[in-house]
Amino acid sequence: MQYKVIAEDRCSNARCGVLHTEHGDIQTPIFMPVGTVGSVKGVHTRELRDDIKAEIILGNTYHLYLRPGIETLKSAGGLHKFNGWDRPILTDSGGFQVFSLTGTGRKITEEGVTFRSHIDGSKHLFTPEGVMDIQRAIGADIVMAFDECPPGDSDFRYAKKSLDLTMRWLERCVKRIDETSPLYGYEQQLFPIVQGCVYPELRRISAEHAVSLDRAGYAIGGLAVGEATEDMYAMIEVVNEILPKDKPRYLMGVGTPQNILEAIERGVDMFDCVMPTRNGRNGMIFTSQGTINIKNKKWEREFTPLDPAITSYVDEQYTLAYLHHLIKADELLGLQICSIHNLSFYLWLVREARKHIIEGDYAAWKSVMVKRLAVRL
Amino acid sequence: MQYKVIAEDRCSNARCGVLHTEHGDIQTPIFMPVGTVGSVKGVHTRELRDDIKAEIILGNTYHLYLRPGIETLKSAGGLHKFNGWDRPILTDSGGFQVFSLTGTGRKITEEGVTFRSHIDGSKHLFTPEGVMDIQRAIGADIVMAFDECPPGDSDFRYAKKSLDLTMRWLERCVKRIDETSPLYGYEQQLFPIVQGCVYPELRRISAEHAVSLDRAGYAIGGLAVGEATEDMYAMIEVVNEILPKDKPRYLMGVGTPQNILEAIERGVDMFDCVMPTRNGRNGMIFTSQGTINIKNKKWEREFTPLDPAITSYVDEQYTLAYLHHLIKADELLGLQICSIHNLSFYLWLVREARKHIIEGDYAAWKSVMVKRLAVRL
Repeated sequence: MQYKVIAEDRCSNARCGVLHTEHGDIQTPIFMPVGTVGSVKGVHTRELRDDIKAEIILGNTYHLYLRPGIETLKSAGGLHKFNGWDRPILTDSGGFQVFSLTGTGRKITEEGVTFRSHIDGSKHLFTPEGVMDIQRAIGADIVMAFDECPPGDSDFRYAKKSLDLTMRWLERCVKRIDETSPLYGYEQQLFPIVQGCVYPELRRISAEHAVSLDRAGYAIGGLAVGEATEDMYAMIEVVNEILPKDKPRYLMGVGTPQNILEAIERGVDMFDCVMPTRNGRNGMIFTSQGTINIKNKKWEREFTPLDPAITSYVDEQYTLAYLHHLIKADELLGLQICSIHNLSFYLWLVREARKHIIEGDYAAWKSVMVKRLAVRL
Repeated sequence: MQYKVIAEDRCSNARCGVLHTEHGDIQTPIFMPVGTVGSVKGVHTRELRDDIKAEIILGNTYHLYLRPGIETLKSAGGLHKFNGWDRPILTDSGGFQVFSLTGTGRKITEEGVTFRSHIDGSKHLFTPEGVMDIQRAIGADIVMAFDECPPGDSDFRYAKKSLDLTMRWLERCVKRIDETSPLYGYEQQLFPIVQGCVYPELRRISAEHAVSLDRAGYAIGGLAVGEATEDMYAMIEVVNEILPKDKPRYLMGVGTPQNILEAIERGVDMFDCVMPTRNGRNGMIFTSQGTINIKNKKWEREFTPLDPAITSYVDEQYTLAYLHHLIKADELLGLQICSIHNLSFYLWLVREARKHIIEGDYAAWKSVMVKRLAVRL
């Protein structure tokens, strides 16, 4: 897996590049649609490729482990074969879901995490080694380290203890991935996750530790979990001073279009977030002119495209008035249109960012855009 | 609106033809996907046209009148403009929904039906004239008469009384449609609906009355509402002896693939039914080899196309195992795939029927198919 920086902004840390994987090249900065259980909700594979122009999608290890289960994925020959997506896939490690979706009965030990399935209450154990094996079976191109995800408001003492455990687990992940082989004949690379809550010194320790393990790319986790936006940006700056410039940097689970542009300015290359699909299913659409609550009566007779920027065919095929009607009437098609539009918009936004980095006016363009994107139409 | 019969089966009443409308030609026999509230649930307009190869879709007057409402549809310039479907549309009259969806407070008088909305309980009056005006505003190419839909098990006395009312209402519908003009510049034709429950003499009276009004096409209503399948076929035979051979015949709300092939053999040209979409959303898929309950564990690792006949791209893009997983995991994409597959299959089936009518071996082909389609895989 090779990463090549092809342009750097003159006035900021923004850069663009190409990440080469055996399932195809990824132009960075990139947004990765989230396909939790092996499908991006409401979106066909063909639409992901041709309309949204996704270059890489996410799968969730926790969800895929529970359903369809590892044996089924192995029989299929991996997730790419199972869901028919033949471009790159990244899987998270389940660390975040184990903490956010499972409640009573969860137990963290040195060995790993024992938890109960949110579906049927059955008991499971995730260890760093086990999670690497699961991601081998899923067959993602990029696999994530298994980490502990402390709450956003953790005090320093807990954050430090948690980070120590995460670093020990990371070393076990690295060991396991290095002593096992891919199951389906193509390369899989492990990205460590930098943790440390909002404490710069912990973030630095974590980043330096991750870098010492010399991997193909690095992720920044544990942000956008309730901390102030300024703290998030500050942590990205702290970490990106340490992460190597010649490797891709992935900011996990972030965020709004404005967050993404700010993080790109601070040197982040890869993003994922459920916001475009989850908020979309709730009737919120992101456009080049600001956000729209499509349920609002003001759109009832607005027979115009969803977004003048026309980031995908749904923007022209359907009108705001029709989408308003579909969402009000709880029609499935409404959820589908919002999902396709929002994902197309996010992918359009990172392509625009890339263009402006290459043209050398990223910082100026970003300043205009973050104001415009914050408008509530 | 011209209808031309282009081939007749030698051994049965099956025929095929072309129905010309100002929104395009319809090759009969045809199945019409149901777009209740102005969208076919889970299916994009583009998919309807290019993948499912629908030639005409349905809208429901009752639903569209309540949401988005007639004023919005008028502002849009009619339903075609509102939902972006530029091919023919047929709207039912709301007669069936008024009886099936509204409960307490419904009152039938000579004037019409007073009912309460199933959405918010608000009170409304449908009259034959009002329903014609609503369908003018929706702008369907084919509009249906407003009829009373008696229960499937009505006794002769009630069925006769109901039919008398339906016939008086039909005359009012005809008068209204003939003294008003289309709102959007293209022709709209009214199809009378033949009623009469399972009583041949009532069916004959109704059919002769409808024919005397000399319209562009005729519908057979009030079937598949609980009567024995043999009774349904018998009623179709009775009615089609009377309906003119040079006009299209539309069997409303029917049915299974086998029902459709049997009705085609008895001279029916047009069909609609929610079964492919509704049952699809419940995990039932219709294939050229029989029906599949995709929730069944036997499909868990069946990494093969949905239907060897490959009636649309979803059959090849996805496998039975993946669809099983999606439906088990309540993923939206599962509903979408089942809907597209089933509708594509229904459209494929009527195209196959047409081919065999032209080739002259319809009856023989049908006998083989109805057995095969009845298989539970």
